[in-house]
Amino acid sequence: MSSGVFITFEGIDGVGKTTQLNKVYQKCIELGYSVIKTREPGGTNIGMRIRELLLDPGLDEMAQHTEALLYAADRAQHIQEVIKPALKSGNVVLCDRYLDSSIAYQGYGLDRDIALIKEVNKWAIAGIMPKITFCLDQEPEIALKRTKGDRIEQRTIEYYRKVRAGYRHIAISEPDRFCLIDANGTVEQVFHRIWYIIAGRGIL
Amino acid sequence: MSSGVFITFEGIDGVGKTTQLNKVYQKCIELGYSVIKTREPGGTNIGMRIRELLLDPGLDEMAQHTEALLYAADRAQHIQEVIKPALKSGNVVLCDRYLDSSIAYQGYGLDRDIALIKEVNKWAIAGIMPKITFCLDQEPEIALKRTKGDRIEQRTIEYYRKVRAGYRHIAISEPDRFCLIDANGTVEQVFHRIWYIIAGRGIL
Repeated sequence: MSSGVFITFEGIDGVGKTTQLNKVYQKCIELGYSVIKTREPGGTNIGMRIRELLLDPGLDEMAQHTEALLYAADRAQHIQEVIKPALKSGNVVLCDRYLDSSIAYQGYGLDRDIALIKEVNKWAIAGIMPKITFCLDQEPEIALKRTKGDRIEQRTIEYYRKVRAGYRHIAISEPDRFCLIDANGTVEQVFHRIWYIIAGRGIL
Repeated sequence: MSSGVFITFEGIDGVGKTTQLNKVYQKCIELGYSVIKTREPGGTNIGMRIRELLLDPGLDEMAQHTEALLYAADRAQHIQEVIKPALKSGNVVLCDRYLDSSIAYQGYGLDRDIALIKEVNKWAIAGIMPKITFCLDQEPEIALKRTKGDRIEQRTIEYYRKVRAGYRHIAISEPDRFCLIDANGTVEQVFHRIWYIIAGRGIL
């Protein structure tokens, strides 16, 4: 149905994924592709309202099912309002985080039921899966320094280790789609690793 | 897992289901059962916030998937916060509308994708299905007079005909659980039809 190419970027916070997404975006423009960039949480008006609800500390305890359904509703709106139309018009669509973030962060990081998250998301995305996902991979201690500076709680590091382990599980179960990229080195070095795969596999 | 008994009441607006639910509630109390009554939309704080979102006219067009997921999120919260604990404590739980309302109203009434609504709800209810559902059945012209008086638009009647037809489809596909009850007659007559089934089938 869609004639565009859908590429997502994943990884723990501070690993440099937005920088790399922007590099790929620039490169696509130089090569003359129609390309858009977007991110999750989605930035649709409806999605923003759903986020407010998810993050409201004044509410009662939210059931795990409710939470997963609300995240999925945000994603569904983003897909139908932004991603699907852009793919239909033949764009390259670069998305900063997608369903793998739910699995890695909520599932592995917060120990929520992974089968449950997968199932409801599978339904929400209505078949719109990335052609390829680049997951920037780095030790949490190094990545977090970029966003949080030197003083990082041990608890935080433990959490991000679980998220990273989650991404690595996905990489094992879906090796064709989900590419782990070594995020160590200069921006240019990391970009070279990503573009090598895009060009080498004929992704665009 | 649950030791209580879950009974739901369905039907188009004005058909008298809340009246009958209250009659069953009273009868259960007389017989010494622990019984609670609840209704959908759920009345949880989170559910109320989700409803506000669903009914906000200021928002962009909501994708069908998003809408279905939000309704399901409301239901999931109601189940986890109210219905499941009550069943676990051994209560008879009487619920005014449940997932059949989504299928009949959104699916059949508004011509939304029924398979889609079923699938996401199946997931949201986490296996909590009513032991029996009483669907009060009556011509929309008669039922709507109770809530809307004599001046009813033809369009409204057509809509409720589709909803009623939806309920009848469910009755055909799940005859053991979903009982159509003739809603014509006095309150006592209709109650007798319901209680005859509760007693006769050993529901409590």
